[in-house]
Amino acid sequence: MSVARDRLRWNGWGRLGESLAMSPARREALLRSLGELFGRELRPAVEPVALDEVTLAPSRIDDATRRSLRAACGDEGVRTSHFERLTHAAGKSLPDLLRLRRGELTGAPDAVVYPPDEGAVAAVLRVAAAAGIAVVPFGGGTSVVGGVDPLAAEGQGGVIALDTTRMEALLRVDPRSRTATVQAGILGPALEEALGRHGLTLGHYPQSFEHSTLGGWIATRSTGQFSNGYGGIERMVVSVRVVTPEGVLRTLEVPRSAAGPDLNAFVLGSEGTLGVIVEATLRVRPRADHHEERGLLFRDFHSGVDALRETIVEGVPVAMLRLADARETGLYEILRRDPARRVDLSALGLAAAARFGFGAGRCAMIAAAEGPERRPPREAMAKLRRIARRHGALPLGRSPGRSWHRDRFRTPYLRDLLLDHDVAVDTFETAVPWSRLEAAHASIEKAAQASLERHAGAGVAMAHLSHAYTDGASLYFTILYPLDPSHAVKQWEAIKRDATDAVVAEGGTVSHHHGVGVDHARWIGAEKGSVGLAALRAAKEAVDPAGVMNPGKLL
Amino acid sequence: MSVARDRLRWNGWGRLGESLAMSPARREALLRSLGELFGRELRPAVEPVALDEVTLAPSRIDDATRRSLRAACGDEGVRTSHFERLTHAAGKSLPDLLRLRRGELTGAPDAVVYPPDEGAVAAVLRVAAAAGIAVVPFGGGTSVVGGVDPLAAEGQGGVIALDTTRMEALLRVDPRSRTATVQAGILGPALEEALGRHGLTLGHYPQSFEHSTLGGWIATRSTGQFSNGYGGIERMVVSVRVVTPEGVLRTLEVPRSAAGPDLNAFVLGSEGTLGVIVEATLRVRPRADHHEERGLLFRDFHSGVDALRETIVEGVPVAMLRLADARETGLYEILRRDPARRVDLSALGLAAAARFGFGAGRCAMIAAAEGPERRPPREAMAKLRRIARRHGALPLGRSPGRSWHRDRFRTPYLRDLLLDHDVAVDTFETAVPWSRLEAAHASIEKAAQASLERHAGAGVAMAHLSHAYTDGASLYFTILYPLDPSHAVKQWEAIKRDATDAVVAEGGTVSHHHGVGVDHARWIGAEKGSVGLAALRAAKEAVDPAGVMNPGKLL
Repeated sequence: MSVARDRLRWNGWGRLGESLAMSPARREALLRSLGELFGRELRPAVEPVALDEVTLAPSRIDDATRRSLRAACGDEGVRTSHFERLTHAAGKSLPDLLRLRRGELTGAPDAVVYPPDEGAVAAVLRVAAAAGIAVVPFGGGTSVVGGVDPLAAEGQGGVIALDTTRMEALLRVDPRSRTATVQAGILGPALEEALGRHGLTLGHYPQSFEHSTLGGWIATRSTGQFSNGYGGIERMVVSVRVVTPEGVLRTLEVPRSAAGPDLNAFVLGSEGTLGVIVEATLRVRPRADHHEERGLLFRDFHSGVDALRETIVEGVPVAMLRLADARETGLYEILRRDPARRVDLSALGLAAAARFGFGAGRCAMIAAAEGPERRPPREAMAKLRRIARRHGALPLGRSPGRSWHRDRFRTPYLRDLLLDHDVAVDTFETAVPWSRLEAAHASIEKAAQASLERHAGAGVAMAHLSHAYTDGASLYFTILYPLDPSHAVKQWEAIKRDATDAVVAEGGTVSHHHGVGVDHARWIGAEKGSVGLAALRAAKEAVDPAGVMNPGKLL
Repeated sequence: MSVARDRLRWNGWGRLGESLAMSPARREALLRSLGELFGRELRPAVEPVALDEVTLAPSRIDDATRRSLRAACGDEGVRTSHFERLTHAAGKSLPDLLRLRRGELTGAPDAVVYPPDEGAVAAVLRVAAAAGIAVVPFGGGTSVVGGVDPLAAEGQGGVIALDTTRMEALLRVDPRSRTATVQAGILGPALEEALGRHGLTLGHYPQSFEHSTLGGWIATRSTGQFSNGYGGIERMVVSVRVVTPEGVLRTLEVPRSAAGPDLNAFVLGSEGTLGVIVEATLRVRPRADHHEERGLLFRDFHSGVDALRETIVEGVPVAMLRLADARETGLYEILRRDPARRVDLSALGLAAAARFGFGAGRCAMIAAAEGPERRPPREAMAKLRRIARRHGALPLGRSPGRSWHRDRFRTPYLRDLLLDHDVAVDTFETAVPWSRLEAAHASIEKAAQASLERHAGAGVAMAHLSHAYTDGASLYFTILYPLDPSHAVKQWEAIKRDATDAVVAEGGTVSHHHGVGVDHARWIGAEKGSVGLAALRAAKEAVDPAGVMNPGKLL
């Protein structure tokens, strides 16, 4: 197994000892700036409780069930230790971390099983169905919407976390068809390494890439930072194998079919409610050894949106375009400010930009392109610069893009640093058509800002545009606000509700790529409509009549 | 309404008075060549029965039901005439035509309704559910798999054909998001004309384009001749509205979502079994006023496949690549042979080709590219020629492509001409990964050929490769064989079964773009697996508990 959970933060993001590279002076400056923004001094929060101080209710797995699980997964494959149960008790959402840091869990799985193969998965589901126990599929455990919370349905007598990470083999490569068949418990880096040995890449880089699994990507319909180049996970999946309580759901390994509705689409986004994704055949490409990044500064959000949209509809083969709004651009500038430097390059740059008429409304764009040869990414960047110039942009060179590339999987570490000072960070995202995008951006940001002021007395809501399509784009919002330590989860819930209501009111989807889980479940009716929801629920019941699979999520 | 069924062939393809342009001499030559191939002289078949000679069972619609339907659709919107019932009694599959030509129908709808809007559709479904009558959604009626056959489930007392063609408005264009919202009963030419007025195109050209509807394209997961450029219909659909017996199923107009499984995919390919598709928002593009076509000749199928695959994986922006195998290339040559011409250009070309070593295994490719500007299609064709040259191809110039373009919606007319001489023509198609494509091609063609010899004593099976993807391609088979007039449908059934068994044995999908309907229904379990099929059936029952919608199809 490539997951070593003892080297990971159980109550925060990522690996122990790692963080967003930031000198103490820069950290101080950041906290000072945020304090100014919130109108209060930021002080160290109460220390989070230690792992072994968290009390868990006793495991409800009885001996007979334990024996059956061991028969399926081996003795080592069934674990009920405090450590295993705790590290499978939550995902990485803000409310998850708030609860973990205080040691106030809503629950923990009664056992954690590590099935070695498809047959063992099927056996675990049979045991669970017979014993009336819920099964929560668990890959990297990085859900930010409560997707792996250890919930049981009414009447169920326990929860098993089914950890997929023992199933992590690259099974087959078909170079002529440019596909690879992979077990679903593999983590991002292991998958790219294995494909890289064949000169191939999948090109799927969600921010959780280092800690999430292929199965999780499929289950949540995830998308990666380079989606403009590679598409979301739905573009990559040729076929899947899913162990459901009623047997294996499998799709054909064919490039396209008109023989009824596409069952891959039924599995993509199913969030563990149908069964356990154990295997997938994926479209892969030649390894992309060359990449280019660039920064650009626009006078305002509108001209940046126009340039970004034009780049997409003209088919320029970029991998990523990310346009921060004025508030997020302001935060980038705060993050880059380094008091230790004699000459503050950021400040100099801004002074220069101001001379060219880039005022408070300025918006930064980071763009990336990559490919197996040097020329196409360069040409893509050149085309982008030409379009951006027509929209009055100032080129910022390679440095902003490079620092983005260096830290692209590290920004989540910042959340832990800020929580240490009772500053909450949360994100939410949507997608809307281009014609409604700017209005939706303004209105959702305004609603979120008002909610922060109402429920936290201060805060800042900001957004960037990313994952663009010919017909629209995603808006990714970040909120920062001072935590109310005595009601942290309730405070978050109130803000979450206001923000999501605003998203729905603008006709946006409740999630472009985070998923539904527990946190968005109350809006799933608005998203799917009552008829669509009834169809999804019926399909789920057909493959999981006992309701074993991930109850309380999605539907 | 833009459909004038009195100007269409009720027992054959397309418009009365139209056919594949072919001089009498060429027609004679073609029949002579086919006769030689079959080892018998082809003679005129028995005349098909006339429209008013066909006897239909009396309509089972009672007065109360008729009144309710009239209240929903208006007096003119409810028709029970012999003409209306007969023109809605079948699609355009080979067995459909065999039955129609002999006047031996398996049934006819008891009434044909033309609802003017979504509300009327809902009312018709309510009336049908209450009266225990099946509803068959009917657009252009061009299904080649029995998708519009007027079947009732056991216990149902009648069949209503719900003709969607009164709902044919372009409702909205969103130029900034490059989308158009259209009623689903619109025919291909009317849709392209309406979009063209806005400088836009959908770019979806199934061979049925002139006679099929948007709703039909979505219901069957269709794909068009230019799918390499525009993708299948699933790439075009942003959102849909479907009237089901349980209410309206609608999806959000957003570019992407991770809020659960994609319900568009549940509607795409549902073949009228969930409800009536009444509206869709589609991704559109700038009108493509420039197009380029080219012909190429390869030494053998293998080198053609290699060149085609390379063109696709290198991302050359072609709209169509169609590679005929040696047998189909042979038929092209027969079709182009014109005894009236003093100089037979085809023969000259072949003689020249033979001198360059292009023997009996030679395979013709037709390629097309199009776009709003002149340069990109030209560049795409130039890139293709460079790749083809590396694989030893001989350029055939523009002429084969041009004649393909002229006749691209007309080849189905040939089937009627041949049926007039008791020659059956049928087609079937699949898709497989590149690594299995050549083996599947050989094995399926061989099985079809053997079946023709077994069940018809003679015949020819051939194929072309089209609709290519990075991970595989579609194989489109055509069979021609001498009809046994006394058992024409039974003979077809035996051949169909052998051919489809061969497709399934090779791991191919039973349909790349024709759909399932009645004709492929016996293989849907092999296609979807029992678990997948159970999920689809449960979802259908949730939105259509009384089983009103298109019984006997797909599931």
